[in-house]
Amino acid sequence: MDIRAYLQKKKMLVDDALDRYMPTLDAYPPTIHNAMRYSLFAGGKRLRPILTIASYEAVGGDRGCVLPFACAIELIHTYSLIHDDLPAMDNDDFRRGVLTNHKVYGDAVAILAGDALLTEAFRLMTDSDAISGIDLRAVLDVINDIANAAGASGMVGGQNLDLESEGQDIDLSDLEYIHTHKTGALISVSVSTGAKLGGASEEEVRLLSKYGEAIGLAFQIVDDILDIEGEEALLGKSVGSDAKKQKATYPVFLGIDGSKKLAGELTDNAIVFLEDFDDKAGPLRMIARYIGDRKG
Amino acid sequence: MDIRAYLQKKKMLVDDALDRYMPTLDAYPPTIHNAMRYSLFAGGKRLRPILTIASYEAVGGDRGCVLPFACAIELIHTYSLIHDDLPAMDNDDFRRGVLTNHKVYGDAVAILAGDALLTEAFRLMTDSDAISGIDLRAVLDVINDIANAAGASGMVGGQNLDLESEGQDIDLSDLEYIHTHKTGALISVSVSTGAKLGGASEEEVRLLSKYGEAIGLAFQIVDDILDIEGEEALLGKSVGSDAKKQKATYPVFLGIDGSKKLAGELTDNAIVFLEDFDDKAGPLRMIARYIGDRKG
Repeated sequence: MDIRAYLQKKKMLVDDALDRYMPTLDAYPPTIHNAMRYSLFAGGKRLRPILTIASYEAVGGDRGCVLPFACAIELIHTYSLIHDDLPAMDNDDFRRGVLTNHKVYGDAVAILAGDALLTEAFRLMTDSDAISGIDLRAVLDVINDIANAAGASGMVGGQNLDLESEGQDIDLSDLEYIHTHKTGALISVSVSTGAKLGGASEEEVRLLSKYGEAIGLAFQIVDDILDIEGEEALLGKSVGSDAKKQKATYPVFLGIDGSKKLAGELTDNAIVFLEDFDDKAGPLRMIARYIGDRKG
Repeated sequence: MDIRAYLQKKKMLVDDALDRYMPTLDAYPPTIHNAMRYSLFAGGKRLRPILTIASYEAVGGDRGCVLPFACAIELIHTYSLIHDDLPAMDNDDFRRGVLTNHKVYGDAVAILAGDALLTEAFRLMTDSDAISGIDLRAVLDVINDIANAAGASGMVGGQNLDLESEGQDIDLSDLEYIHTHKTGALISVSVSTGAKLGGASEEEVRLLSKYGEAIGLAFQIVDDILDIEGEEALLGKSVGSDAKKQKATYPVFLGIDGSKKLAGELTDNAIVFLEDFDDKAGPLRMIARYIGDRKG
């Protein structure tokens, strides 16, 4: 199966599961539930939940218990986009080619929709149907990992430093902190969550976490490059926004070519971490290449 | 022990535990951690965690495992205050007599500090030290209850409807929905969480949940009354803000005397739900009276 067909098939699986797990549109009160679904079904690629599934399958997970956790990570990702887009933060009007949440529902509802999606992620991961048949210690362990990756020492911390660094003179280690926390932490925990739920050994979890860290940073470096030379039609948002906001990016430090070289090295390294895995890790290898080569 | 001494003693216990559980002020990045602690230690009465502890003790819980969960509920309460105070929501400058989070740190950091506190609550409740020795099924059950109470079908849903109802012509059943969800749901789950962790029977959990619902609604009705006839010095915020924002309140529907009567009936009912409990439920009985009589 080629990578595009694989991603498409898994994306449909995730979309369908999200639709089943989320409260329906006629849930009360209507506005908040509409706003939550608006951003959740606004065309996401579902990269993080697909990584969770691919990692679960790479270690031989076959009990079909990974989907609620994969979807919970997508809920957290979606909440973070809604809050990041707010006028008080990045002030973006478009995301994936459609209006951002606050442009449709206003700031107050957008804040609440983000809050509700974050909360819903933890509700879903503790739902009695979702966790039936899974080792409860593993369930609590991955929820703790996910909270660590999403919170002040992870994604939120990265966003905090990113906002503070706009227009400031920061060095490459600060930028690496921002990228590995704002984006990398949730991508990496997507991979480790799948591995742990799939019954991976400690060594397998360690290797897959290294894989996740490498592709997480590569993903964000490619994002920096696409913000300079990407095509708006493929990205669904305007390019050049980093420069406009005086954000430090990898191309600022390493140039476009140097940044591409580093992203390539990171995806190569990611694949090396999978050396001892068999063919079941094929999708993870393809996803690493895809992240290095993506155009949108 | 009288109620004031009891509340003071338990508040110190909660404050101390929160200080130990939370990342220290020198955690990186500094701003987000400072902002989280700023609101967390801005003079809260700790009513919700005290209810969790009192409920745990009422059913004979004695394994000392309740504190992380009690504190997690306070983290969720604090996040909700930070977000509710934002200019995009209630736009309040003062809370408990000190500047609100966004007045000190700006809107972006206040949004992130709220996000981080909410996430931290779930990290704390899944921390391996915190849950060591507890039945893991009970842990997952109470986390699920708390997420339900805090999310779109609970607290966030109540806040959504509250904001939408400003200046609108709503009826008493809408107002009851707002109060029981925006405030009542988290107060009620504080009580049921303590009961479940303390090893309560299903019937005990049912009765204590009814107690929690009754005091939760009474609490908010008293809040409505205090916004009209309370003293600013005791409240730490300006009175009359509901009328200014054209918010529907119980006094609008029932008058001041009718509202006081209803709050009194609710606290009486709450105590009736405790009929079959022994002296260990004494603090819960005192707290119900305290909620009905409070001045700030």
